[in-house]
Amino acid sequence: MLSEFDLIKRYFAQHTITDPRIVLGIGDDCALVNPSPGMQLAISTDMLVSGRHFFPDADPYALGHKCLAVNLSDLAAMGASPVAFTLALSLPEANPEWLDQFSRGMLSLADEYACSLIGGDTTKGPLTICITVFGELPPGSALRRDAAQAGDDVWVSGTLGDARLALAGYRKEIKLDPAAQQQAAQRMHQPTPRIALGLALRGVANAALDISDGLTGDLGHILERSGMGASLHIDSLPAGPVLSHQSLATQRAFTLAGGDDYELCFTAPVAQRSAVIAAGVRSATPVTRIGSIDTAPGLRLLDDFGQTVSLQLTSFDHFSSP
Amino acid sequence: MLSEFDLIKRYFAQHTITDPRIVLGIGDDCALVNPSPGMQLAISTDMLVSGRHFFPDADPYALGHKCLAVNLSDLAAMGASPVAFTLALSLPEANPEWLDQFSRGMLSLADEYACSLIGGDTTKGPLTICITVFGELPPGSALRRDAAQAGDDVWVSGTLGDARLALAGYRKEIKLDPAAQQQAAQRMHQPTPRIALGLALRGVANAALDISDGLTGDLGHILERSGMGASLHIDSLPAGPVLSHQSLATQRAFTLAGGDDYELCFTAPVAQRSAVIAAGVRSATPVTRIGSIDTAPGLRLLDDFGQTVSLQLTSFDHFSSP
Repeated sequence: MLSEFDLIKRYFAQHTITDPRIVLGIGDDCALVNPSPGMQLAISTDMLVSGRHFFPDADPYALGHKCLAVNLSDLAAMGASPVAFTLALSLPEANPEWLDQFSRGMLSLADEYACSLIGGDTTKGPLTICITVFGELPPGSALRRDAAQAGDDVWVSGTLGDARLALAGYRKEIKLDPAAQQQAAQRMHQPTPRIALGLALRGVANAALDISDGLTGDLGHILERSGMGASLHIDSLPAGPVLSHQSLATQRAFTLAGGDDYELCFTAPVAQRSAVIAAGVRSATPVTRIGSIDTAPGLRLLDDFGQTVSLQLTSFDHFSSP
Repeated sequence: MLSEFDLIKRYFAQHTITDPRIVLGIGDDCALVNPSPGMQLAISTDMLVSGRHFFPDADPYALGHKCLAVNLSDLAAMGASPVAFTLALSLPEANPEWLDQFSRGMLSLADEYACSLIGGDTTKGPLTICITVFGELPPGSALRRDAAQAGDDVWVSGTLGDARLALAGYRKEIKLDPAAQQQAAQRMHQPTPRIALGLALRGVANAALDISDGLTGDLGHILERSGMGASLHIDSLPAGPVLSHQSLATQRAFTLAGGDDYELCFTAPVAQRSAVIAAGVRSATPVTRIGSIDTAPGLRLLDDFGQTVSLQLTSFDHFSSP
C-alpha cells in the first residue's frame, strides 16, 4: 500500500511550477506566494462529494477536469486571472490508475490556465474533493453580484441546458440516442471555465456570476444582492446544441433551471452593448442578450409576444431537494 | 428543512469582519482580499474526515475549534500571521444544534486570532471539513522545512504526548482515572496553535514545522528536506502533565510518536539559544532544547547516559496504518 506522502508526491508534486509568483509549492507546512504588486486576491472554495456532485464511477480524468473547472469558473465570474490552487482529497483507497487519470485531468486544465497546484492534503475516507483557488485582479475591477444597475442588459455566455439534458438522459427521463447523450455528457463532465470572457468584461460589465445551480436561481442572487428585479425573454435563451432538438417546454425548463452550465450570467449598461459583443469576440466566447434589470422586485419571464410565462421552477438546492 | 444558503447565512455569515484587508467576504463567487503591501502569502489546506480524524459523535464545539486550530498551526509553523480562511463543509444533515455549536467553536478561535472567515461551500454528504487558511509574512522570513543547518539545536514548544495518551484512554490501552482522561482529552480536542511563538521565531529559528503525526516522523521531514540527520535526547522530551505520571516507556513512546500534539519543532543556531528562550518568554510559550542537527543521515535517540536507544516507532500514516 502506498503511503499518503508517496501518493501526493507521485501524482501531484510532479506538477512543474514555472510561475515566479509561487515562492514555495507542495511539501512544507504552507505554500508561499508573492502576489503581483497592487493586485487584489480573489479566493473561492468548492467541495464535491461522490454520489452528490458526480457518480461514484465517474471517469477520473473528466472528474479531475471538472473539479478544477468549477473553481476556475468562480474566478471567471469575478473577472480574476488564475494564479494557484490547493487540493484536499479524501479517498476510500489509493488506486494508482484512478489517481493517475484524475491528476492528469486536473493538471492538464491547470496548465492550460497557468494555475499552479501549490498545496494539498490527502486522507482516507469517502471520495470527496475540495479545491480552493486563488486569482488576482486590479482593485475595484471585480464583477460583483451586488453591482447590477436598473436598465442594465442581462447577458449569458455560451449555451445552457445541455448538462441538464445529459442528466435527464442518464436518469431515463428523456430518451437520447447515444451520440446525443455523449455530446451532452461532454458538456456535463468537462465544462469550460469562461476565464477569457471574465477578463474581457472588466470595466464593461457591472455584475456577474457563474451559473452552477440554474439560470433563474443564480440570477436571483444578483437580483437579491443588488436590490433589483429583472425580465427575461425566455425564447432568447441560448439552448445547447443537443437541447435545441428537444421540445420547446424542455428547452425552456432546462435553459432556465438546468444546473451545471458553468456559463457566465452578467449585466452591463445598454451603452456597453457593443463593448460586450467585442469582449465576446476577443475571448472567442458567444454572448447572448437575454433580458434587462429593473427596479420592480422579482424575476419576470416573457415570451416572444411579450406575454408573461409562469413556470414552476426552482433552483437546485442540496438540502431541500430530495 | 433549511436550504444550504440559509444554513451558511445563519451560522457562518454572522461572523463580523473588521479587517480592512478583507474587501469582500461570504456571498459572492469569490472573496476579495487586499494583502498588506510587500507581504508574502502563506497558504495551507487540511481536510478532516469523520471516523478518521475525529469521532463521529465528537463534541461539535471542540471539533469546530480543532479544525481551525490545526490550520492555524500550519501558519504558526511557517512564522506567518493569520489573515483569513475558507470553510467547505459536507454534512449528512442540517442539524441546527450541531451547526450552532460547531460554528461557535470555530468562530471564537477565529476571533481570538483575528482570522476572518471569508468564504465557503456547504453540501450534503459524509461529515467532512476542509479549511484553507491564509497568512502573511515578510518575504524571506518563512520558517521552512528545508532550512536546518548542521550544528543547529533542535527545539520543541510546550509538551508532547497527552493527546496520544487520551486516545490510549479512549481505546482502553491504558487505564486513566476520569480527571486524567478529561485533562488529556482537552489537549487532544482543543490544541493551541502556536502563532505567537512562530512570529517570535522569525529571524531566530532556521527550520520549523508543526507536530501533527508524531515528533520523530515530523522531524524526519525537516531532516529529509534539509539533507541532514539529528540526535535527540529522549529523556529531555517534555512529556505532557498527564503523561508524566505514566511509565518511562510510555512517556518515551508517546512523546516520540504520539501524534496530534500541534506543537512546533524547530531548529536554531547555537548562537541563538538565548534568543530562542526570549522568544518563548515573549510569546508565553515553553520551549525545550531536545537535540541537535548533524550531517550524519538518520535520527539517533540517546538516553541520559549518551547511550543509543532503539525504539520501534513509526509515524502515523493514514494509508499504511490499519
